Amino acid sequence: MKIDSLKTLMTEELRDVYDAEKQITRALPHMIKSAESPQLKAALSGHLDETKQHVERLEKAFEMLDMKPRGKACHGMKGLVEEGKEMLGLAEPDHYRDAAIISAAQRMEHYEMAAYGTLRAYAEALGQNGVAGLLSKTLEEEKEADRTLTEVATALFSEMEMETVAS
Amino acid sequence: MKIDSLKTLMTEELRDVYDAEKQITRALPHMIKSAESPQLKAALSGHLDETKQHVERLEKAFEMLDMKPRGKACHGMKGLVEEGKEMLGLAEPDHYRDAAIISAAQRMEHYEMAAYGTLRAYAEALGQNGVAGLLSKTLEEEKEADRTLTEVATALFSEMEMETVAS
Repeated sequence: MKIDSLKTLMTEELRDVYDAEKQITRALPHMIKSAESPQLKAALSGHLDETKQHVERLEKAFEMLDMKPRGKACHGMKGLVEEGKEMLGLAEPDHYRDAAIISAAQRMEHYEMAAYGTLRAYAEALGQNGVAGLLSKTLEEEKEADRTLTEVATALFSEMEMETVAS
Repeated sequence: MKIDSLKTLMTEELRDVYDAEKQITRALPHMIKSAESPQLKAALSGHLDETKQHVERLEKAFEMLDMKPRGKACHGMKGLVEEGKEMLGLAEPDHYRDAAIISAAQRMEHYEMAAYGTLRAYAEALGQNGVAGLLSKTLEEEKEADRTLTEVATALFSEMEMETVAS
């Protein structure tokens, strides 16, 4: 598709993030299984449920724009998933692997924050307020997921410090 | 390298972001050349200068940790650069291409925000306050670069709307 209007640009970006969300639904189960901390497992599981809703919201957005939901290979997310797998493979199953999982997940969240922020701006500029509302809802959930992961990381670091002092 | 301590995890992540910053210094000149808006050209050029300083700051951080600066292939940034090139190739040289450039650049900024936020937390947990300070400085500049790009995008969208009304 040639990008010669804000509408075609938005379409390309919607397809990109639709694929990104689907990649995340495939990547999260392995991350949940690899996590040791129950808090981390819970945070990631909660986000997996949300991610499935994000996919549905994108399908609704496509519908509101009279388009069929269709993805296009999202190279950005592919790289992030690949990087996450590499780090997990290197890390021993311990606090450090949990930290590596959080790091990978926060990179994914940040990708999505950038993508949804951009898409919402496009939808608003095009006067597509209904679509903008859906995107806004997902954007807030991505930000919240990132904050939750920071809290889990903070708790993890205090545990590590306590163990260091105790050892 | 096997990740079996917070120090080895931080080392891996430092190498990742060192490579990411270098990839950005190679990608930005093409984005600057492709941009039409003088404001966008200026914002990206300013950020290219900053990025070179971020590379130097990372070298300083490696030094403070008694390590030689060394990168490792950052798959995440590679995917983002690839995706940006694809979008630019599809877009006609117009406001829409400028918008596509901003979108790609903001995804890069967000990657770095996640990376530096994580690294700063590691440095703090390790009591490496000097390193944490350096990382913090770069993190703030990445956030500021993201905000500047949002401002440029907002101005671009109002121009687009005025042209639509006038046509």
